[in-house]
Amino acid sequence: MTVSTTSAVSPVAPPRVATRRSSPLGDAFHVFDTTLRDGAQREGITYSVADKIAVATLLDELGVGFIEGGWPGAMPKDTEFFARAAAGELALTTAKLVAFGATRKAGTRADQDPQVRALLDSGAEVITLVAKSDVRHVERALRTTLSENLAMVGDTVRLLVDHGRRVFLDCEHFFDGYAADRDYGLRVAEAAVSAGADVVVLCDTNGGMLPMGIERVVREVRERGGFRVGIHCQDDTGCAVANTVAAVQAGATHVQCTANGYGERAGNADLFAVVGNLTTKMNLPVLPEGALPEMMRVSHALAELANIAPNTHQAYVGSSAFSHKAGLHASAIKVDPDLYNHLDPTVVGNDMHILITEMAGRASVELKAKELGVDLAGRTDAVGRIVDAVKDREAAGWSYEAADASFELLIRDELAATDAAAAGVEVPPRPFTLESYRVIVENTGGTVSSEATVKVHVGDRRIITTAEGNGPVNALDSALRSAVAERYPELNEVELVDYKVRILAGHAGTDSITRVLVSSSIQGLRGPQEWTTVGVHANVVEASWQALVDALVYVLPSSTGNPVLPT
Amino acid sequence: MTVSTTSAVSPVAPPRVATRRSSPLGDAFHVFDTTLRDGAQREGITYSVADKIAVATLLDELGVGFIEGGWPGAMPKDTEFFARAAAGELALTTAKLVAFGATRKAGTRADQDPQVRALLDSGAEVITLVAKSDVRHVERALRTTLSENLAMVGDTVRLLVDHGRRVFLDCEHFFDGYAADRDYGLRVAEAAVSAGADVVVLCDTNGGMLPMGIERVVREVRERGGFRVGIHCQDDTGCAVANTVAAVQAGATHVQCTANGYGERAGNADLFAVVGNLTTKMNLPVLPEGALPEMMRVSHALAELANIAPNTHQAYVGSSAFSHKAGLHASAIKVDPDLYNHLDPTVVGNDMHILITEMAGRASVELKAKELGVDLAGRTDAVGRIVDAVKDREAAGWSYEAADASFELLIRDELAATDAAAAGVEVPPRPFTLESYRVIVENTGGTVSSEATVKVHVGDRRIITTAEGNGPVNALDSALRSAVAERYPELNEVELVDYKVRILAGHAGTDSITRVLVSSSIQGLRGPQEWTTVGVHANVVEASWQALVDALVYVLPSSTGNPVLPT
Repeated sequence: MTVSTTSAVSPVAPPRVATRRSSPLGDAFHVFDTTLRDGAQREGITYSVADKIAVATLLDELGVGFIEGGWPGAMPKDTEFFARAAAGELALTTAKLVAFGATRKAGTRADQDPQVRALLDSGAEVITLVAKSDVRHVERALRTTLSENLAMVGDTVRLLVDHGRRVFLDCEHFFDGYAADRDYGLRVAEAAVSAGADVVVLCDTNGGMLPMGIERVVREVRERGGFRVGIHCQDDTGCAVANTVAAVQAGATHVQCTANGYGERAGNADLFAVVGNLTTKMNLPVLPEGALPEMMRVSHALAELANIAPNTHQAYVGSSAFSHKAGLHASAIKVDPDLYNHLDPTVVGNDMHILITEMAGRASVELKAKELGVDLAGRTDAVGRIVDAVKDREAAGWSYEAADASFELLIRDELAATDAAAAGVEVPPRPFTLESYRVIVENTGGTVSSEATVKVHVGDRRIITTAEGNGPVNALDSALRSAVAERYPELNEVELVDYKVRILAGHAGTDSITRVLVSSSIQGLRGPQEWTTVGVHANVVEASWQALVDALVYVLPSSTGNPVLPT
Repeated sequence: MTVSTTSAVSPVAPPRVATRRSSPLGDAFHVFDTTLRDGAQREGITYSVADKIAVATLLDELGVGFIEGGWPGAMPKDTEFFARAAAGELALTTAKLVAFGATRKAGTRADQDPQVRALLDSGAEVITLVAKSDVRHVERALRTTLSENLAMVGDTVRLLVDHGRRVFLDCEHFFDGYAADRDYGLRVAEAAVSAGADVVVLCDTNGGMLPMGIERVVREVRERGGFRVGIHCQDDTGCAVANTVAAVQAGATHVQCTANGYGERAGNADLFAVVGNLTTKMNLPVLPEGALPEMMRVSHALAELANIAPNTHQAYVGSSAFSHKAGLHASAIKVDPDLYNHLDPTVVGNDMHILITEMAGRASVELKAKELGVDLAGRTDAVGRIVDAVKDREAAGWSYEAADASFELLIRDELAATDAAAAGVEVPPRPFTLESYRVIVENTGGTVSSEATVKVHVGDRRIITTAEGNGPVNALDSALRSAVAERYPELNEVELVDYKVRILAGHAGTDSITRVLVSSSIQGLRGPQEWTTVGVHANVVEASWQALVDALVYVLPSSTGNPVLPT
């Protein structure tokens, strides 16, 4: 087994739909996501190619119209991403994949510019070209003439359009440029449009605008230009979402956003807030039907992939976005929630916090169990135990949001315990139990080695195994696997495909609690199946052990049924 | 040289000014802070009375006009806070202290309502009264008549004004109420104004508004009402800052905000973004002269007091608010920083950061070194070595963008190596070197233990230590620290404040790589200083070891200078 080589995280997804879907507005309104390009500029984000495929898949599930995947030709990882996507690793049902790039260099021919060629080679149907539209940037950063810049835009757009690509033009620093010179930006736009570009995206690249200024300029450009206008806002004034919405109110029909507002400096306009506002406040159904309740799940899964803790107070999708603390409100909320919430939280897949602890706990557990294929109808006793167990565990740092398999094991364990209590018998044991393990990591003169020994009981046999690994968890996994595989050889087929570590609320650095998520996969009857398990402990090795054990127990035959393997 | 001026919270305050000061706009524009009342509704914030005094002192240093301290009479802690403030524990030089409370209850007399009496007893010169201004809330939540509600407002305001208090009226749910009934909210406002209230604050209590709607309603109310209008926005659409700014553009001259946007659900309008926008974008000098560069310091100190990690991407004051990652931009930024920043970061007490990433070239490395206080001018040989080293390391999984201290060590090591090569001598060794370490993690019958032994050479001494810990990294940290602290006792003062682990997907056929980031802190001459180091290895323990070693080497005296500790 190797840790994380091929596919990365795939949180439990709805079944892939074969037919293409689109929003009720069709091509009349574009939700354009640039998490993989502009969002990746955020400090701390480094997507692997596998991450990029997982991010694009989630965005497609949400139903955005366009996914900008990166800059092929400029970044080797992006070139690889487009190649693998074109080779079939990325199957989009809703979104079109977009490649980002620059116009040809000054004084060259578009068809001989290697970066322009790389855009064509990427296989993307849609291209976003970035162009300078502020006179000062043309002269001081690009260091070319104003007319050559226009020719660079026109030539490059025409070449791409001639090759059958749809082209959007991102006008960098448009608003600053417009303040200094009302005409030049429009000339850049017209050069692109007359060469066949479809949308001219006005970019507030340094993020210094406020909504009223955006609204005025977009309205003027729409009136003066007569072409389709898009908007791209950065959050340096804390107004990116509002600026995007203001542009739509002024006539923009293409919004460029990033998931959770990830991006350089203060970030970009947050996709979820923008979509939430357009859909629920402005009555623009910009996502396919049924997509809005996926927002919270997708937002949190994308945070996991970026390895950034979700912002609990994020508008619409934050776990606290609908939580009420004021005692003043609590009783009124219970009677009349819409007096205090701007929106029914379930519309965006969120929940009102007060209700979760008081009454909705049982309902969500039942719903979740049903989703996992376990029917809890008529098992009120067990549901109560499960709710209590979840509360205790979540208080201690567990999180089942991304660990369906561990949650299902918890349900199975509690059901078995309830049944055993009712029958007055012992709870049936898990397929194997631990006596002890020991892991040793050594660095001797620069050579690092790891070795693990486990002692487990499988049925009535006591088995001791020792294994080496490239790290303590890998060694432990190998030792455990070889101990248990004597009895259950099918475990040799289980692959560990992802391993994530999160340190929770570190009060004092290494004293904090560690949460480990392990994703495993096996070739099942209906293709590869993947499941995720969780472990929590102050000790990262112990937390990993818990998640590894759950990962194996999950596929083994048990008294409460086996969800994955053919029996 | 200091470590990343932005990451450290410096409690060092400017000397207290004896004379009262105010903003150039005087009473014509109110910056009203409600961090201590509405901000404290945020999930997770619990201020003690001492915290409240510290928060108010910081806000006063920043120069806000009003500080709402709480709800005396309703919350015992708030009653105590006002009593202690009145007794002299809080000496404000700029702000006025404000008490928050409700109007008299229905069917009672204002002078006999204990909560109204508590407002008078608090000693606060200014009172904010909250009133229902939405018909549905009067009828369904307050359960009284529309006319009794008007009387409650009028009576209470009059009593407070008769006792010499200045009164602001917070109209709860004003915008929803106005959408349903254009007149009732105005009648509530007029009841207050005719009884002597100074400002009518329109509150978007459930946060569901967008800027254009706010702008229109504020403008209409201003035209129809003829009284002074204030604004209070929640962030449920992600537009609280923009909504506040839009209200000011429509004529509001009183803005209610909270530090860092703390507040219930998605939070409130962020004081720092609102003030930044009003001051630098709308030319409204709403703070006293010289106050703006205090914003970043005050924001981070208030985050510390709330025990919430500062939002690194917060507009204006986030440590990444002026960070640039794209290599494309870095060379242009070197020439002309105002082409890419919406504002000179020092205006708000912030700094421009260049992120060192795989996209970095020579320009970024030189800029970054300069930011860290290392002058590489004329060291083209060393710059070339550093760029190569960064590229090699980043290709192997290192990431310096969040690990300034490791990057600085890399610069120092490469400079030392270049100098040594030029002089034909050996490279001077680091303050300590590793012979070996061994870490053992055991789980025996459910009891988990960790033990680490390290053998290091410090100068010409060989030291062996063993330590236990709650996990392998903690044990290793303790053992290393106690080995090296014999010679460098100042290391006992270093605290490990954060520890992050990221698993990087490996290339096909290889195992994954672990990247560890360690943040450490020490009490420096000018307050606490914090730095971050990085380690990368297939083995999480070895990666942690590397980051721990860098963290200690960074503060130790070396031939290339010591950045943190006084010598």
